[in-house]
Amino acid sequence: MSLEKVSSNKAFGGQLVKYKFKSETLGGLNANFNLYLPPSATTSKVPILTYLSGLTCTEDNGAQKGGFLGPAAQEGIAILFPDTSPRGAGIEGEDDDWDFGTGAGFYLNATNPKFAKHYNMFTHVTVELPAVLAAAALPIDFTRQSIFGHSMGGHGALTLYLNSLYHGAKQYRSVSAFAPISNPINCPWGQKAFTGYLQGGIEEAKEKYDATELIKKLKSPVNILVDYVCEKEYDEISALTLNATQGTADNFYIQGQLLPENFLKAARDAGYDEVQVRVRSQEGYDHSYYFISTFGADHIHFHSNFLKA
Amino acid sequence: MSLEKVSSNKAFGGQLVKYKFKSETLGGLNANFNLYLPPSATTSKVPILTYLSGLTCTEDNGAQKGGFLGPAAQEGIAILFPDTSPRGAGIEGEDDDWDFGTGAGFYLNATNPKFAKHYNMFTHVTVELPAVLAAAALPIDFTRQSIFGHSMGGHGALTLYLNSLYHGAKQYRSVSAFAPISNPINCPWGQKAFTGYLQGGIEEAKEKYDATELIKKLKSPVNILVDYVCEKEYDEISALTLNATQGTADNFYIQGQLLPENFLKAARDAGYDEVQVRVRSQEGYDHSYYFISTFGADHIHFHSNFLKA
Repeated sequence: MSLEKVSSNKAFGGQLVKYKFKSETLGGLNANFNLYLPPSATTSKVPILTYLSGLTCTEDNGAQKGGFLGPAAQEGIAILFPDTSPRGAGIEGEDDDWDFGTGAGFYLNATNPKFAKHYNMFTHVTVELPAVLAAAALPIDFTRQSIFGHSMGGHGALTLYLNSLYHGAKQYRSVSAFAPISNPINCPWGQKAFTGYLQGGIEEAKEKYDATELIKKLKSPVNILVDYVCEKEYDEISALTLNATQGTADNFYIQGQLLPENFLKAARDAGYDEVQVRVRSQEGYDHSYYFISTFGADHIHFHSNFLKA
Repeated sequence: MSLEKVSSNKAFGGQLVKYKFKSETLGGLNANFNLYLPPSATTSKVPILTYLSGLTCTEDNGAQKGGFLGPAAQEGIAILFPDTSPRGAGIEGEDDDWDFGTGAGFYLNATNPKFAKHYNMFTHVTVELPAVLAAAALPIDFTRQSIFGHSMGGHGALTLYLNSLYHGAKQYRSVSAFAPISNPINCPWGQKAFTGYLQGGIEEAKEKYDATELIKKLKSPVNILVDYVCEKEYDEISALTLNATQGTADNFYIQGQLLPENFLKAARDAGYDEVQVRVRSQEGYDHSYYFISTFGADHIHFHSNFLKA
């Protein structure tokens, strides 16, 4: 698991470093990730926040477009940006679709023998990457971890967090998500992924990889923030920019891929209030990084409350 | 010159809108640009800051990666993001190199007959785009304009600003640049561009398109901010991230493409002090958008002083 530095860029007084290493959990393939170390990492170990990106993304999208690095520098928090799937496994069909296979690992451990050697992003993110960073003696305090993500990565963040709590491990202190796939057993993206990656299909996923199902059976306190976009907004500024009848919207919400209300309802039914599970509708935004960057600082500050408590 | 809306994204409470139109100055080709309108544009006309991007870029790079939109929303400033060249002129050889032709218009008006019909980014940015926006009745106050840019776009920003002052037009109140090509008649990129686009070659460029030459002959007050990166920095945080012997750096500075010291010396020789021409060396950064985004808010605030005066 020896780490190789691919590139580094100074940003907001800290360093964004891209590393690669041969990943055992991904079947021996090379895996890339980015790590942002804030300026304060020179004087003490810093807490770490993992950002999981969405379908088709790599370790770069969040680092380049999320607007996270400035707030993380201010708060003294490291950010880990993993990739979204193994790359180059050579499995038949893995590059055919944008929503399955390469770029679409869904942060699970595959049990279908066809994918089980390589598609293990769950263990890659929760176990292997922290171990690799620790082995490289990077200045990170692994007793202080949180996680967030976007879309498929929002699904990943919620399910990794909830699984950890459910199994008593408490690896992450808090979780947040932008427009997460919130109830994947009931949406086309999730059904396709689970049917493909898991021997037990949707039934297997229901136990392990569905945030709405997981929150139903949880008893412990949680710290959850979700931002999503449910409606187009017809506002004055849209009217000013031509095509006055159209606001923007999250088309994947409209298609029923995200289902955040299902997660919210399950959380409320399980007794979680607005303090523990905060779900906010942000009208007029869409599924893009323009939406994410607008609320990026807000999410960093949310996690900072717990990481620095 | 009728404007067509290609897409829009809500960001930081405002709207980023991509438009296209048939550009007369670019020989009748379709031209794209992005316009960010801050939330305050719904209640009053707002000042406008033009951002010129560097080699190989489009109208998207600055909007996605610059970190400008949040500060512009706060300050109530619109940002115009033009493209970097005409697209699809069909001129022999225009797509052969990344530093000449498509994506490399150098913000000049070509006089070489081969390019003169299409490569007129100078007039496109200074005259045509403001006219197109005004004709669409967008809520912009064109008496309050400033300009900034990166690398080739830093060259563009400086030369458009200085030309405007030199000819008494005062179109822009202030200019800033990240790692600008500051003395292009003396660097390989500039020499290649000027020899290719201009009938009079480097002699013609010396009169019109070289910031260092232009500042020498200027008498009027100026408001100029330049950030550049002259040195690798071997600091503690680089040491922590493996390969302890390497900091980051701006490789194009090292290659002699930027020459900001020439501009600084010319400005001081012409009598401009640190208040009017502020040139800052930011050590340890590089030529990327990680550098730009680190100082993006700073540049917006610099321009805000003049745009809202």
